[in-house]
Amino acid sequence: MSDAWQRLLPKLGELSHLRSAGALLNWDQAVLMPHDGGAARAGALATIESIVHERLIEPELGGLIEELASDTTLDEGQAANVRVLKRDRSKAVRLPPLLVAEIARARGVAYEAWTEARPASDFRILQPHLERLVSLKVEEADALGYEEERYDALLDLYEPGMTTRKVEALLGGLVEGLKPLLEDAIPPSVERPAWLEQPFEAVQQDRLCRWLVSSIGFSFDGGRLDSSPHPFTTSIGPGDVRQTIRTQPNALLPSVYAALHETGHALYEQGIPKHLVGMPAGSAPSLGLHESQSRLWENLVGRRRSFTDFLLPHVKERFPAELGMVSPDEFHLGVNYPERTTIRIYADELTYNLHIALRIEIELALFRNELDVADLPDAWNAGMEEHLGIRPQADGEGVLQDVHWSMGLQGYFATYTLGNIYSAAFYNKAEEDLGGLDDDFHNGDVSRLLGWLREKIHSQAYLYPATELAEKVVGHEVNPGPLLDHLREKYTGLT
Amino acid sequence: MSDAWQRLLPKLGELSHLRSAGALLNWDQAVLMPHDGGAARAGALATIESIVHERLIEPELGGLIEELASDTTLDEGQAANVRVLKRDRSKAVRLPPLLVAEIARARGVAYEAWTEARPASDFRILQPHLERLVSLKVEEADALGYEEERYDALLDLYEPGMTTRKVEALLGGLVEGLKPLLEDAIPPSVERPAWLEQPFEAVQQDRLCRWLVSSIGFSFDGGRLDSSPHPFTTSIGPGDVRQTIRTQPNALLPSVYAALHETGHALYEQGIPKHLVGMPAGSAPSLGLHESQSRLWENLVGRRRSFTDFLLPHVKERFPAELGMVSPDEFHLGVNYPERTTIRIYADELTYNLHIALRIEIELALFRNELDVADLPDAWNAGMEEHLGIRPQADGEGVLQDVHWSMGLQGYFATYTLGNIYSAAFYNKAEEDLGGLDDDFHNGDVSRLLGWLREKIHSQAYLYPATELAEKVVGHEVNPGPLLDHLREKYTGLT
Repeated sequence: MSDAWQRLLPKLGELSHLRSAGALLNWDQAVLMPHDGGAARAGALATIESIVHERLIEPELGGLIEELASDTTLDEGQAANVRVLKRDRSKAVRLPPLLVAEIARARGVAYEAWTEARPASDFRILQPHLERLVSLKVEEADALGYEEERYDALLDLYEPGMTTRKVEALLGGLVEGLKPLLEDAIPPSVERPAWLEQPFEAVQQDRLCRWLVSSIGFSFDGGRLDSSPHPFTTSIGPGDVRQTIRTQPNALLPSVYAALHETGHALYEQGIPKHLVGMPAGSAPSLGLHESQSRLWENLVGRRRSFTDFLLPHVKERFPAELGMVSPDEFHLGVNYPERTTIRIYADELTYNLHIALRIEIELALFRNELDVADLPDAWNAGMEEHLGIRPQADGEGVLQDVHWSMGLQGYFATYTLGNIYSAAFYNKAEEDLGGLDDDFHNGDVSRLLGWLREKIHSQAYLYPATELAEKVVGHEVNPGPLLDHLREKYTGLT
Repeated sequence: MSDAWQRLLPKLGELSHLRSAGALLNWDQAVLMPHDGGAARAGALATIESIVHERLIEPELGGLIEELASDTTLDEGQAANVRVLKRDRSKAVRLPPLLVAEIARARGVAYEAWTEARPASDFRILQPHLERLVSLKVEEADALGYEEERYDALLDLYEPGMTTRKVEALLGGLVEGLKPLLEDAIPPSVERPAWLEQPFEAVQQDRLCRWLVSSIGFSFDGGRLDSSPHPFTTSIGPGDVRQTIRTQPNALLPSVYAALHETGHALYEQGIPKHLVGMPAGSAPSLGLHESQSRLWENLVGRRRSFTDFLLPHVKERFPAELGMVSPDEFHLGVNYPERTTIRIYADELTYNLHIALRIEIELALFRNELDVADLPDAWNAGMEEHLGIRPQADGEGVLQDVHWSMGLQGYFATYTLGNIYSAAFYNKAEEDLGGLDDDFHNGDVSRLLGWLREKIHSQAYLYPATELAEKVVGHEVNPGPLLDHLREKYTGLT
């Protein structure tokens, strides 16, 4: 084994451990941390991040990377680690340490403000902190550099190689295709099922979700499922992948489909080959690729008729009084009932990407200096009106609904729609390769599909860039066609 | 403000944040971490520890400390921070990194062996690993240095400034005083109350403990209470103090008194002045001083008649079927029932310190080269016979019962008895200053006592060495007299 690689290994170990510490500090902040711990937590996160930065920019590391970049004795995984590390390092070198620390701190403060602002439905609580954060993100984008426009630099943080131009093209095609589908399906000709909104006991919801995630392959020996206000999944480190859900007192489906969604992410992380976990190339090549797995399990599998048919008896077992009389037709309709809703995370498959389109338009306007943070609520409400024909009653269910902006995740939302586009393309290909998946799902058996995903996607980690991996999987460049076909097929005649 | 202090501040912040990360990684490991995360967690903890070490030994930090040690413009808190940091740094500088790594490794191996040896009740499984660890601890003590004898260096890790000579004097006096009390009280003339052992539902135990810790002043806004196999308390950082308890299916008192004990630690941490929390001087001056607070709430308050009288109706409310018929006399007796037990952690107030005396005698013999590790079981059994008049049936309930030695915590046990001695001296002084504490407790009001502890002890953090602080609090050098008086008073006529 190459001598330079031997010298790189302890450095990779240290980076992995530091990222574990950061991931745990973040997870704990969202799930368990007592209220008064907020200020100090922001500082701890900033320190870990700045030590990672300090280690990344060390000249010795740069020398090792240069040496290894041309080392032909490396195996595929080692070479991918060097490539990703080189990318991470080149970004780190471009970012002044002071800026990194300031962003981390500003993010912590803005997040805390958001946790107050959302329940109070008062954008002004968040506004000054968001203004600061956005101006820091502008600095960050400019420091990172870009070819066409500033927003490219932000996209590239989550979707390496993706550009604003490509996103606008994909999204534009999707939005155009969605319009007629939406017109046809909403308002539906049948009434909203009453059982969608009624009390469902939290403990039983939690048990149902635990059974469900376990039955589709999530390992509790190597992970956890907890509650947090905003469901998410994170890898703390090798053997420790954590997902969260939120149960609502008056609805069952949000927790169930959050669990399916997060399990999609979690199965991806639990499917990364052992020798790559914790290493630079030990995760998805992009967040859109990651999201393809959550969307695939939530929507392509979880909301299809064969799966809702399998699911219903198990749901009835937990909630006999509430759902005993619901038929398979009614259940499938309820799971897919199309509506114009103000809240992204409750949106159905049909309207979801319009929520994303709104957010991306706003982000683009912000980073093209066409919009001030102070005007976000108005821009939000106007955009909702345009895309979905509805207006939020209050900022809490409008511009304040998402945590992303207060966490400095500007540029992130595109990954959701890219995930949707990828997910339908992957599912199509899996059905083409395997055949008869609906028969499997009817019997509650997802093992052939999971095996296919493990082989084609999870085990590939970050050996290839996202677009290259997606192209390898489906055989051609990915486009929104399969997603639009899937939605057209599902919603034609559903209501 | 001094320029050197300004340059020191960010370094103190970084150290505080790193310790927060380490504390959270440790807490999570003991409380929540999924099984498969174990190996990576050990690595993450080692990385954080080695970065702390790296930062401590930086020459620049040494220069700042030297400059600030003679800076007369510092306020009391700043000066204390410099003093404690200097102490931490001088220890870090004296320990060769290789020795630190070897001890960490030997500790890991010995701990693993202990987890096998204890259930198998076979000392030979642990023996070679403990031999290695003890010889490394000898090296550590010699590297750290001492004035009178080697054991001083180990004591000093947990009890700064404490010497073997002082510990032997305090412990000797205590053991002499305990002998006649033990003869009088054990065996008791009344039978062991049957209700001590019977089923108590875990959820109700947990609710009772939550109410209890909150009612004596623990802030859930600034902390948590969770479950773990071994109860402990840790400060994650400012505004985040976490305690754990363990509920047993067939006994109630262990969880209730663990909660009181841990709350004593937690109230201390929550009472550290805001400007000192997370700083070098932002905790107790010694583990014995810390333990004084846990023992004070567990024993001096929690087991006294006025408090058990207050507690009983609340306990009955949660467990009417189990304890509805128990009288205040019977409850107080059950809480204090004296027994000769082989296991330290189940020992009552009367016998507890004899368990400690035995351990310290053995540690002293080891580090004075008067005893070989191979002879530990015999020495243990002989010592138990001498101090408590009983002999363990097997090493599992004898020399193998505690985890401390296999974790390299030689020198630690003294802090438990010092805590007991301090706790009684402090309680005496509080009663002398405040008067009528029993009337308060009868009404469930601990606020005057807590206020006194906050002022006299918690708010003092590490402004003074432990013995100096204790002397300031009680007005003279602390001795075992108050503890012996307290036990004599309690056990005279109890059974």
